[in-house]
Amino acid sequence: MLREKVIQMLKDRGVELKEIAEIVYKLQSPFNPDLTMEECLESVERVMDKREVHHTVMTGIALDMAAENNALPEPLLTIIKNDEPLYGVDESLAVAIASIYGTIGFTSFGYLDKNKIGVMARLDDKNNGQVHCFLDDIIAGIASAASARLAHSRGNDIL
Amino acid sequence: MLREKVIQMLKDRGVELKEIAEIVYKLQSPFNPDLTMEECLESVERVMDKREVHHTVMTGIALDMAAENNALPEPLLTIIKNDEPLYGVDESLAVAIASIYGTIGFTSFGYLDKNKIGVMARLDDKNNGQVHCFLDDIIAGIASAASARLAHSRGNDIL
Amino acid sequence: MLREKVIQMLKDRGVELKEIAEIVYKLQSPFNPDLTMEECLESVERVMDKREVHHTVMTGIALDMAAENNALPEPLLTIIKNDEPLYGVDESLAVAIASIYGTIGFTSFGYLDKNKIGVMARLDDKNNGQVHCFLDDIIAGIASAASARLAHSRGNDIL
Amino acid sequence: MLREKVIQMLKDRGVELKEIAEIVYKLQSPFNPDLTMEECLESVERVMDKREVHHTVMTGIALDMAAENNALPEPLLTIIKNDEPLYGVDESLAVAIASIYGTIGFTSFGYLDKNKIGVMARLDDKNNGQVHCFLDDIIAGIASAASARLAHSRGNDIL
Ligand SMILES: [Ca+2]
Ligand SMILES: [Ca+2]
Ligand SMILES: [Ca+2]
Ligand SMILES: [Ca+2]
Repeated sequence: MLREKVIQMLKDRGVELKEIAEIVYKLQSPFNPDLTMEECLESVERVMDKREVHHTVMTGIALDMAAENNALPEPLLTIIKNDEPLYGVDESLAVAIASIYGTIGFTSFGYLDKNKIGVMARLDDKNNGQVHCFLDDIIAGIASAASARLAHSRGNDIL
Repeated sequence: MLREKVIQMLKDRGVELKEIAEIVYKLQSPFNPDLTMEECLESVERVMDKREVHHTVMTGIALDMAAENNALPEPLLTIIKNDEPLYGVDESLAVAIASIYGTIGFTSFGYLDKNKIGVMARLDDKNNGQVHCFLDDIIAGIASAASARLAHSRGNDIL
Repeated sequence: MLREKVIQMLKDRGVELKEIAEIVYKLQSPFNPDLTMEECLESVERVMDKREVHHTVMTGIALDMAAENNALPEPLLTIIKNDEPLYGVDESLAVAIASIYGTIGFTSFGYLDKNKIGVMARLDDKNNGQVHCFLDDIIAGIASAASARLAHSRGNDIL
Repeated sequence: MLREKVIQMLKDRGVELKEIAEIVYKLQSPFNPDLTMEECLESVERVMDKREVHHTVMTGIALDMAAENNALPEPLLTIIKNDEPLYGVDESLAVAIASIYGTIGFTSFGYLDKNKIGVMARLDDKNNGQVHCFLDDIIAGIASAASARLAHSRGNDIL
């Protein structure tokens, strides 16, 4: 099944769903003191049900891996290897994930981009030959969507 | 001219372009140590040339003012007065401004939403009867667009 | 409940969910010859479960009604009354609805904007004193989301 | 210079800017009877000045070519080769181009996706071993942006 394949791809690139859930916990626990890690992981799991997410994860990882293998034409190869700040295609892709539960996901996404937490900080280390130009934004997108989903599900339905 | 009218509307709501330029300076000066306030203000002025920005500012301020005057149907009135966290229409509108110079504007936008700087912090004060549900996001959008514009204009054109 | 309130608002503005379902049927039946109107209506009902949709519908209708009552400042009043082609705030709002089931919703949204079908054509008539600058786009957004949802739910889950 | 490199890449993939200008002409001439092909081409040239466009074109073509060379992991390879309707990453990328002159670009983009005109129809032919999953949407994005730019530049600046 595609869902399981995509979760395995993330693992192969060094990312466990539990680590994404930790980001969600850090984002949401200030607003929900009784929030549990289980709820965060459950929310990440629901984001991983979405076909749009599968497609985006596969595409982003394929580009990261092609860059690692020097299998992209220049100057795109150098841009992706360096995760150039002016290159915005990674953000374009990931923001589509971040907003699957509404535009309130934008906020966390931008915040995470400036404050790389947990697994995102590890991926951001450029001294190991690995390329995660797309993956870091994708993780931010998944964590933002899972946060938005939690916020909505705990929201007052009267409003 | 529409441009001048919209700048006057911002002033009437308590926001000078210079204050938006100060946000841009705080966002961009860590990356560009020789950046000047003049460049930041110039970039904000260029964002204010855009018709899309005029339309969004006018619409957002009209909604804020209608809420101040209790001239919106419930429950929308209460939602906008309280700037409810789950209400995302203000973000939807403002992110369209933030991204007029490309998706790299998303990042600053989300960051500013969590770290309200300068004039944004002042607008966020809900104890004065004023409603700035839309205006705070619009200012974040203008500042993010002006930052993205600066980043692009100082970028290495080879890449 | 907010959901029922919003559906009633649409009715009060002259739009039944069944009419939105008819647009969905026209969009999707060429690809799915065995599609039924019941499935289309069911899909519209699911879109109407989303809080983001409630908020956007309420905001758009509030702006349309404020324009009908001449309760907006100029030049915004004239722009919205005329549904000016260069005014894009209505599209910004509605595209957030259109993409709640992924970016494949963009396509139908743009298509409907140029080919106003059924209830959209009726709303587009500007000779009755009513203003539907936002509502026509919102209906296109709901129909596009419901179409994307149907396409996904009938899609081959292997891919 | 990157701009010239990207225009050459489009040529190498079978697309001349003049052909994109023809799409713009077909979109805009019904609204502007005195519109010339020169103006349309000029507008396409201005879109091609944007770094965001360069980055997106390079990334999309790299993915199309990797698919032609069977150099992508499955199931992504098959999805891109078949330009699967439920795959929306190509739309996500291209809509960021379509909206660089504001959200009025969304409309043409969705319309072109359903009504492939001129060079887009040629690229859509899947019987020649070539893969244009991304390129067709990118062309729609460039044409939509160029149309939005023309519409804005001919618009009444009073409103
Ligand atoms: Ca990145
Ligand atoms: Ca707000
Ligand atoms: Ca409209
Ligand atoms: Ca495509």
